[in-house]
Amino acid sequence: MKKLIIASTSTLHNGSYLDYLLPTLAIHFENVKNLLFIPYARPGGISHDTYTDKVREAFSKINITVKGIHEYENPIEAIAAAEGIFTGGGNTFLLVTQLYQAKVIDALEAAVKNGTPYLGTSAGSNICGLTMGTTNDMPIVYPPSFKTLGFVSFNINPHYLDPDVNSTHMGETRETRINEFHHFNPQPVLGLREGSWLEVSGNTITLKGALHARLFRQNQEPEEIAPESDLSNLK
Amino acid sequence: MKKLIIASTSTLHNGSYLDYLLPTLAIHFENVKNLLFIPYARPGGISHDTYTDKVREAFSKINITVKGIHEYENPIEAIAAAEGIFTGGGNTFLLVTQLYQAKVIDALEAAVKNGTPYLGTSAGSNICGLTMGTTNDMPIVYPPSFKTLGFVSFNINPHYLDPDVNSTHMGETRETRINEFHHFNPQPVLGLREGSWLEVSGNTITLKGALHARLFRQNQEPEEIAPESDLSNLK
Repeated sequence: MKKLIIASTSTLHNGSYLDYLLPTLAIHFENVKNLLFIPYARPGGISHDTYTDKVREAFSKINITVKGIHEYENPIEAIAAAEGIFTGGGNTFLLVTQLYQAKVIDALEAAVKNGTPYLGTSAGSNICGLTMGTTNDMPIVYPPSFKTLGFVSFNINPHYLDPDVNSTHMGETRETRINEFHHFNPQPVLGLREGSWLEVSGNTITLKGALHARLFRQNQEPEEIAPESDLSNLK
Repeated sequence: MKKLIIASTSTLHNGSYLDYLLPTLAIHFENVKNLLFIPYARPGGISHDTYTDKVREAFSKINITVKGIHEYENPIEAIAAAEGIFTGGGNTFLLVTQLYQAKVIDALEAAVKNGTPYLGTSAGSNICGLTMGTTNDMPIVYPPSFKTLGFVSFNINPHYLDPDVNSTHMGETRETRINEFHHFNPQPVLGLREGSWLEVSGNTITLKGALHARLFRQNQEPEEIAPESDLSNLK
């Protein structure tokens, strides 16, 4: 049975890393002693080791040890044997490129579909959608494909940001960008505001956290979705 | 002799389309009666026809007629025969995909290197750099490559936006994104603020407009570049 937490962000403003999620994660990973961390997205370009140390520190608060996938000789076997998996945020283009290059996409898909509990934040949440086509990140490397893991049958836009009505900047708003996406792609896009996450339990998908999410469907007006809404049939 | 205007944006806040650039364009295109417009980037998903009409209206103010590349049976011949070329803004992923699919990349490179005067705004400026790897756009389609035209030997970041010190949003700042780019790519990145443009005349590159630009080089502190600075040797 699938079991995922798909979070908009790892960190809230004025919070520390993963803090707001730890009570949820203590339950989500209750049977996990050792967590496998995928640091491929490298936020700010930090190394796999530095990133893994940061994650290790956060999970030590709920008595879970952490090992980075880069510390294993065979990453495919590491995923297959993992008790739980966390993919952290950073740059989605880099993350997806590395997942393909390390040839772990299929292993990751199989493990999570077979019930290995999974946590994604930001870029690690983006890859839970059908494609990475609604990432906010800069295309710093060229991935072999934009296709991602499809643990949910729609796309995720993490760090969803409402238009700033006072802005004088002429770059596109997030909503305009997602509207452009829908000229070329049919799947719904769920804009997850910082502090929101999806809980996937088998075939049930629930919006968690205190905030509404914003749902974009092709050729329809965007819709505000309340916390605790059931999104199981969204596709 | 190369002759380009590479602009951060088509439109300033409270301005109308291309207005602030028209005096410059009247000189830049002084020998052009008919301008070839490349509408492939489709801002907001608008059609090639609608986009071309908008450009036609702006250029009518300086007595230049406009025809869209999509109105020609053979786009490669249209580029080779053009008196002047304008590539408008929108989505860079879509623009680059269409340029490759229409097989006009080589023709565009040849025409501009042979002296056909060129204007780019936003996405149309992004493609003047070595790669599209510093676009701000959402990856709504998958291009065959991120390599672009290299009319300048660095990358462009149009609509450059300074960090908002009051923001509580945890998404990456533009500067953080460009820093991540430099972990994997060596070329300098020029952040062009809205209202700035580059004037390329043969081998001379000059920063124009009233604002400073922000220059990012690998492993160096970012640098503010004053208007009228000579960027000919930047690479």
